[in-house]
Amino acid sequence: MAQATPTHGRVAAWLANHTDTPANRAVALAVGADVVGFGGGQPAAELYPLEALERAFSRAILEDGVKVLPYGASEGLPALREIVAERLGRRGIHIGADNVLITTGSMQGLHLVGRVLLDHGDTIVTEAPTFMGALGSWEHQQPRYLSIPVDDHGMVVDRLEDELRRAERPPKFVYLLPTFQNPSGVSLSLERRKHLLELADEHDLIIVEDDPYGEFWFDEGSEPVPPLRSLPGADERVIYLGTFSKILAPGMRLAYAVATPRLLNLLVRAKRGLDFHTDTLGQQGVVRLVRDGDFDFEAHVAAGRNAYRKRRDAMLDALETTFANDISWTRPAGGFFLWVDLPAGVSGDEVAKAALAEGVMVFAGGMFYPNGDGASIRFG
Amino acid sequence: MAQATPTHGRVAAWLANHTDTPANRAVALAVGADVVGFGGGQPAAELYPLEALERAFSRAILEDGVKVLPYGASEGLPALREIVAERLGRRGIHIGADNVLITTGSMQGLHLVGRVLLDHGDTIVTEAPTFMGALGSWEHQQPRYLSIPVDDHGMVVDRLEDELRRAERPPKFVYLLPTFQNPSGVSLSLERRKHLLELADEHDLIIVEDDPYGEFWFDEGSEPVPPLRSLPGADERVIYLGTFSKILAPGMRLAYAVATPRLLNLLVRAKRGLDFHTDTLGQQGVVRLVRDGDFDFEAHVAAGRNAYRKRRDAMLDALETTFANDISWTRPAGGFFLWVDLPAGVSGDEVAKAALAEGVMVFAGGMFYPNGDGASIRFG
Repeated sequence: MAQATPTHGRVAAWLANHTDTPANRAVALAVGADVVGFGGGQPAAELYPLEALERAFSRAILEDGVKVLPYGASEGLPALREIVAERLGRRGIHIGADNVLITTGSMQGLHLVGRVLLDHGDTIVTEAPTFMGALGSWEHQQPRYLSIPVDDHGMVVDRLEDELRRAERPPKFVYLLPTFQNPSGVSLSLERRKHLLELADEHDLIIVEDDPYGEFWFDEGSEPVPPLRSLPGADERVIYLGTFSKILAPGMRLAYAVATPRLLNLLVRAKRGLDFHTDTLGQQGVVRLVRDGDFDFEAHVAAGRNAYRKRRDAMLDALETTFANDISWTRPAGGFFLWVDLPAGVSGDEVAKAALAEGVMVFAGGMFYPNGDGASIRFG
Repeated sequence: MAQATPTHGRVAAWLANHTDTPANRAVALAVGADVVGFGGGQPAAELYPLEALERAFSRAILEDGVKVLPYGASEGLPALREIVAERLGRRGIHIGADNVLITTGSMQGLHLVGRVLLDHGDTIVTEAPTFMGALGSWEHQQPRYLSIPVDDHGMVVDRLEDELRRAERPPKFVYLLPTFQNPSGVSLSLERRKHLLELADEHDLIIVEDDPYGEFWFDEGSEPVPPLRSLPGADERVIYLGTFSKILAPGMRLAYAVATPRLLNLLVRAKRGLDFHTDTLGQQGVVRLVRDGDFDFEAHVAAGRNAYRKRRDAMLDALETTFANDISWTRPAGGFFLWVDLPAGVSGDEVAKAALAEGVMVFAGGMFYPNGDGASIRFG
């Protein structure tokens, strides 16, 4: 029981009886910790395009400052919304700038989706395991989670179909990371993507496609599975979330949500009450960076793909050499994460604790399960 | 009735039956509109310290980039928290960096306070009129508003005392802008500040002191009324919100909340689910700006005070010359706003509409009343 203070009785119910989640505590610990970090989803620091960023921000301030330093539109700067629409077009998502809301990081996109869709106690479908941070963004509404297992081809959509048939009240939305999933690294197969969209139609569900890693595919020859949002019939069903944080620098909180104009209006309205609009200087800095004739933005993204592929290969080699017969792991075709199933009787918590004692940070698998589970660990 | 779409039934209750507020619509209209703007609280564009900002961001990227571009702590950069504590010390608020949470604009501070304190349908005490944006940040929880009138000495605290005696359930918190209030421009007298703190003790209330304009006093000789948070007994009662947006550039979403470490922990936890942390590049840019030996940050703030005093004087002269016998208005000793009471039979809405037709933006007073009211207009 917390110590009584003058303001003790004034706290909202969702906080009064809950301690912080293991995921939250682990993340707080991982940030800035002096360890070998396989914990969070930190992009490689040597990839920051410092000189080009400096040039971009100088121009954004000196040449565009008077225009972009006042209050901005809650939807985001038109030029950045255009850039997002144009880049997504190359991945098969054909939209206009009107479908794009600039958000203060992807986490804000998740929070806004919850704010617009959720009533207290509603049900959300998630993958199991799933991205722990998303759950924190909806904590206030105290949702229930219907968690659907993930196998080598992503969420087991047949299982979701069974659960939906049994459900008394349909869930509000399905939250998933279909491509290079966090934490497992696997991708949802094309066949399952189509099946999921059919289920969404049948049960009138919104799908929230969280895609922070979709641009980091490792095998240049084989095209990655197309985003859910790019498939036929997805326009009205799928809210797509993407981000600049992973391809530029995560300290820069800059991401975007794609939705129908009607849903976008509601997200914009909710955003006004969160931070009014996303930092305009940061937005214009990225506009200047993408449009800098002396900097090849897409080559920068490709360099990221190469760097992360090499890291994955090194990690797979090390696992192969050391543990070949004892444990199994995923072989991600992209993204930031690799998932290790531990042998029976070995707990993820204990492995993570032992690793930390040696100065190495990994996350125990249990924290990625909305309803608890897991003899596994995640490597970033 | 909105047109039925596939996702029509999936929207949260607070949005399903409500159209957007007049305040929200007016703000959306005011941003970027090509009119003579006495609408929003826009700082003067000619005051942006462009060259110093450019220098600060160049250093933040080239010299500090590898340190500040990864994910940061949800509390904010330690150096910026120190700067906030140090600057507030000069206004009589003696705190450590541990009491400071860096927020993505003051609006986020307001939202976080609501997220941590409010349950659905709780009561909030506000001034009437009050800052419309704050109400938007709590919309999701559908609070009730107990609005207390404002006179020339700020909120009528005696009236609050009466209401608290009568209330069946105590309100969760008191939200007010005690210094150079938005929208009226008046300040709460020292005597009433002390009375308010006594009431807070008696009824176990938290006070949310929103102070975006407190640094813009106009009369150098006379010290402004000290912040509520600086008064004896306020440490445990008052959450203080301040901002860099008004003294630098509102497009930069950078502000701070001050609270006891216990409450701060809860605000931090809620912030993790909003945007994980405030943009670190923006934070480090301001650290570099404040610490730039070739730029006098405090002289920059003082220049703002001078510029706004001149604007107030010009506005008061114009009102005096034109309307001396017909209407009355406030004579703010600081801040961004001036409040005009219209004669009987003249509606604020109609005046604002007629002004807009002539290309001049003012906000009708009615939108500043939580429960509706007002034959008045606000000049920014």
